[in-house]
Order: sequence, then C-alpha cells, then structure tokens
Amino acid sequence: MEYSDAGVDIKAADAAKARIKTLAKGTFNPSVLSEIGSFGGLFRPELGAYKDPVLVASTDGVGTKIKVALEAGVHDTVGYDLVAHCVNDILVQGAVPLFFLDYIALGRMDPARVEQIVKGFARACSEFSCPLIGGETAEMPGTYAPDDYDLAGFIVGVVDKEKALPRGVSEGDVLIGLPSLGLHTNGYSLARKVLFETLGHKASTELPELGTTVGAALLAPHKSYLAALEPLLARDKIRALAHITGGGFAGNIPRVLPDGLGALLRRGSWDVPPLFRLIQKGGAVSDEEMARTFNMGIGMVVVVSPQDLHDVEHSLERRGETSFVIGTLVRGSGVAWED
Amino acid sequence: MEYSDAGVDIKAADAAKARIKTLAKGTFNPSVLSEIGSFGGLFRPELGAYKDPVLVASTDGVGTKIKVALEAGVHDTVGYDLVAHCVNDILVQGAVPLFFLDYIALGRMDPARVEQIVKGFARACSEFSCPLIGGETAEMPGTYAPDDYDLAGFIVGVVDKEKALPRGVSEGDVLIGLPSLGLHTNGYSLARKVLFETLGHKASTELPELGTTVGAALLAPHKSYLAALEPLLARDKIRALAHITGGGFAGNIPRVLPDGLGALLRRGSWDVPPLFRLIQKGGAVSDEEMARTFNMGIGMVVVVSPQDLHDVEHSLERRGETSFVIGTLVRGSGVAWED
Repeated sequence: MEYSDAGVDIKAADAAKARIKTLAKGTFNPSVLSEIGSFGGLFRPELGAYKDPVLVASTDGVGTKIKVALEAGVHDTVGYDLVAHCVNDILVQGAVPLFFLDYIALGRMDPARVEQIVKGFARACSEFSCPLIGGETAEMPGTYAPDDYDLAGFIVGVVDKEKALPRGVSEGDVLIGLPSLGLHTNGYSLARKVLFETLGHKASTELPELGTTVGAALLAPHKSYLAALEPLLARDKIRALAHITGGGFAGNIPRVLPDGLGALLRRGSWDVPPLFRLIQKGGAVSDEEMARTFNMGIGMVVVVSPQDLHDVEHSLERRGETSFVIGTLVRGSGVAWED
Repeated sequence: MEYSDAGVDIKAADAAKARIKTLAKGTFNPSVLSEIGSFGGLFRPELGAYKDPVLVASTDGVGTKIKVALEAGVHDTVGYDLVAHCVNDILVQGAVPLFFLDYIALGRMDPARVEQIVKGFARACSEFSCPLIGGETAEMPGTYAPDDYDLAGFIVGVVDKEKALPRGVSEGDVLIGLPSLGLHTNGYSLARKVLFETLGHKASTELPELGTTVGAALLAPHKSYLAALEPLLARDKIRALAHITGGGFAGNIPRVLPDGLGALLRRGSWDVPPLFRLIQKGGAVSDEEMARTFNMGIGMVVVVSPQDLHDVEHSLERRGETSFVIGTLVRGSGVAWED
C-alpha cells in the first residue's frame, strides 16, 4: 500500500508548493529573510520608528463564503478576502501589517485550485504591504469533500503601545460608518440558505436589483480599510475602530467601548444595499437578526471626537472614501437604535 | 428565518468563547497586553537580550489525527499536538516561542468539545511558555460533518539573526536522532486505512504489541523538543535541526542542508517502534514509502559538529533524553541509507 492509496498525493502537494513559492516571493520585502519552504518564515521587523513596539496578531477564516466560491468556480477572491479581513482586525487596534501566513486544507490536493487561492492571498498581500512568509497546505480526505476546502489566515502587525486603540473614547464621540462592498466574510450560511434554497437562485442567476449575478454579488471582496485609515491613525484622529464582522453592530461595537458607554445608531443614516434587502425579504428575517448576522452595508465603524469630525470626513473624502455619520456614543451599554 | 436556521448557533459560540477566554488567560505572561475577545492579541516582546531580533512564524495543522480523536472521543491531545508541532517548527530555525493563536472550525458549535480542544492548547502553551493570545472558532455546517472539525495553529517566536539555524553545516557533521512518541501528526490517513480498514481494528482494540489500545497509540502526543534543545541552542552546539514531519527523512533533512551535502543514515541505528512495524506489515507498505510518510520513531534530527558530539549527548542524557547517532553528512544530496 502507498500513501496515495489513502488519498494523499505527495506529488500533487509538491506541485502546489512550487506554485505557492513563486506567488509568495512576489509579496516579499527586504524584511523577509527566508524562502517559502523553510520550517518557519523569518521576518526582521523595522522597529526603529517605534518607541514601544507591540505586536498585534490575529487569525480568521472566510466561513462558508467558500461554498459560494465553489458554486461560482472562482477561488482567488476568497484568498483576497481572508487577507483583507485579517488586515482589518489588527487595524482596529491601530496596527499596520508586518506579515501573513495561510492555512489551506483540501479534500483533494489540486495544484491549480491552490494556485488560484494563493493568487488571491498574493494580490492582497502586495496591496497591503504584508508579505506572505509561510503557510501550510494539507490534503485531508475524509474531513473535506473531494472538491471542498477551508482557509485560515494569520497576521502579525505592529503598533506603538501608546498609540494602540481604543484610547480616549468618550461620551459624545461620533460614529462614522465606512461602506462595505457586500457581505464581506460573514453570514454566508444564512445568505446561501435564503438565496439558493428558499429563493432557488444559482450563482449564475442575474438579478436586476443586484446589477450582477447572485454569485458575483456574494463574492464581492472584503474591503480593507487600511489605506483609508492609516493616515488618520498616523495623525491620532481616531479613538476606536470596530470591524463589523460576525455579530454585526451589537457584537462588535461594544468590544471597543469602555464600561459605561453604549452606541446610539440612527436608522436610515446610510442606504442598506440591495443584497441585504433581498436576503431579508427572501428569508423573512427580522431587523434584529439581520443586524446581528450581517454588516448591513457598513464594514468599519470609526469613533472620532466631535472636534475631529470634519477633518476626518475631509480626509476620507480626499481619498475617495464614502462615509456616513451613523450615530454617537452615549452613557449606557450595548447598541441602541433611534429612528 | 434566523441565523440558527442555517445551522449557525451564536449562543453556543458565545458559550465556547467564554470557556476559551478562561483557559487562554491561564497561559498569559506579562508580555500579553490584551484580553481574549479583542480583534487582535497584543504582545509586547522582550527583545533587550537580542542583538538583531528576527521573528520566526509558522503555521500547521494536525491532519487527520483528528479522525482518531473523534473515534476515541478524546479531544485535548490534538490541541496539545498542534502547539508542540508549531513549537518544533520554529525551533528548527533556532527560535523560542513568543505566542500562539488557534483556528478551530467545526460542523456544529459544541462548547464542551471546544473546551476540550482548547484545554490541550492551554496545557501545551503553558508548558512551552507560549501564551495563547487569540484565535477564531468558526461553525461551518456543510463544510464539516456535524461531529467533525479541523484545527490550525499559528506560532511566532524570536531568534537572534546571527544565531538562526542552519549555520555552519559541514561535511562529516553527525546526525543525532531524538525519539518520537508515535506518529506525531503525520501519516494518519495511511495509518487509519491500514489499522481500521485493512486490519479491522477499532480505537478501543487492545493490542499486546502496542501495550495499549490502537486509539491510545495513535493519539500519543507530538513531542516538543524545546526543553531538550534550548540549552544546546544557547551554547551554540547545534548546526541544524530537521523536524521529521510529512515527507519523513527524505522530505525534511535536505531542507536544512546546504547545496552539495546529503545525509547518509545508518539502518538499524535505532529501534523502529512497534506501531510503525504494525502499519508496515498490515498494509504491506514498502520501506521507502514508510520512510517518506512516517517519522519511523525519530521526531527530530540534530546536526552537530563531530567535536561537539559527546558534549551534546551528555547534555541530552542529563535531561533524560534518549538519543541515537543515526548518520552523517556526506558530499552529495538527498538522503541515502547504509546497512
């Protein structure tokens, strides 16, 4: 008997590794001291500009957005999404990326599939100056269906201790919402159930209200807010950030608020995009359930002092970023809505 | 419709998070500046003792060892294994751990199951002084069977640039093998096929030649060699290390050798443990296939100068570590065997 009889193809794994190596190398910067293929990735951080550097690390997946990728036969976008998600997660602590690693587990080692996924990682890693310095690609027949896979991403960034967010969050601070590009990477189990099962759509179904296919709308990229927010972080204009992921507003805004403060959000202060309305109507989902499952069109909430509001709005506008004032911080806790 | 109708249980996720938080906190040291539950883990490294600190990062899984955990109903050992595996991967570059993060994806969010897995992480993280500073726990119905799950681990460590391994590896260097405790985390698809399918054993089957059950033998922990090797690294007695994982000797030893050098291993220089012999015989697996799939009883290969051999052997012995001289480095490439 050979290892391949048990469903593990070492030759395919080697072919996949060769493709990953080339793609990853394109993301490298002078801080990367190792090649892909060593046991660990070596990264020599430039910390000279930091008074008291603190590493910020995060890990995440893209959930069952992968099922949509499978349905649509498009696999680079979920790779991009994963990096963008991780970049946003450390950004909310004020950190900029240093490097990224990936974990890919598949039912069957398909080098072409792996290459597509890693192309997405590499595109995002280059965009966010966050080299892909290592990873693991595992063939696990029996855990994953032959065509199926899962992804996990790991990021490390750095922030000066005294600049780590949240800091100085106060009653009366203004909440600015930055638009998402779609569901990002949350709520896909519910979205798929409504769109594919209840409504009977396919990934290829064109819907006029979406202006595209269901698959393309669901695969819209997870937006990273690094480019929009980095200049504001550098100028100390941001008091806190909340990345609107699983749990929605109520699950994420309170994570960055001090005890005694809650968020009062104004209903209708931004336009909920058609995809969310389609899911809500199609699945008869309550407002409350929508808001705790999906980002509802807002991917990042920025907490700023009222004095800095105009400055921040201007800075965002100059970079072509749309923003909405969606609420304020009030004495209390949690998230409440006013009409 | 609610999110739970799509198979995603946010309440169970919150219960799991609460248990993770408590367990993770027990692994913290003063460098950890954040609580579990923030978007990213904050870690302030103590780098004062390093001339030119380089971060070393690695990610890995435990493969289908999870299937054995499911069969045996034991879920803390795979958690331990994952951390030990990651610790060894950065150790081979000379690095000691700073912190660890985990990714757990399950078909059904079972807080008790998650707690067992994370108990294993926490035990290992405490043992290796490597705080668990963050993670992601994802419920993905449809990707994983209701009872199934997958794990990925992510570690960051540090090494002084001039002390990073390999360095100074030369012809005539001696290869010391350190015993594994079992299959560690590689070759489980083949092992399960032979033991459970071909031989018809169950996890609970007691086998006299193993001195225990098949399940217990397969779940034997992935040994970390940090404690054994850290003093030798500090004294510059090690030229290279190869962690014997997927690909076995031929797949891992050459990864740390310079061009022009190969390894000549002596057959019979250590006793291949009964579990490997059982798999080989039961599955009629060739010697070559065994050696490129399994660790064959050697979990780490240490490359030392011949002048340092006795010193290194003594140091290992004083720490209660068994070691075998298993070969030498010769002009050439790859791995060859002599009788």
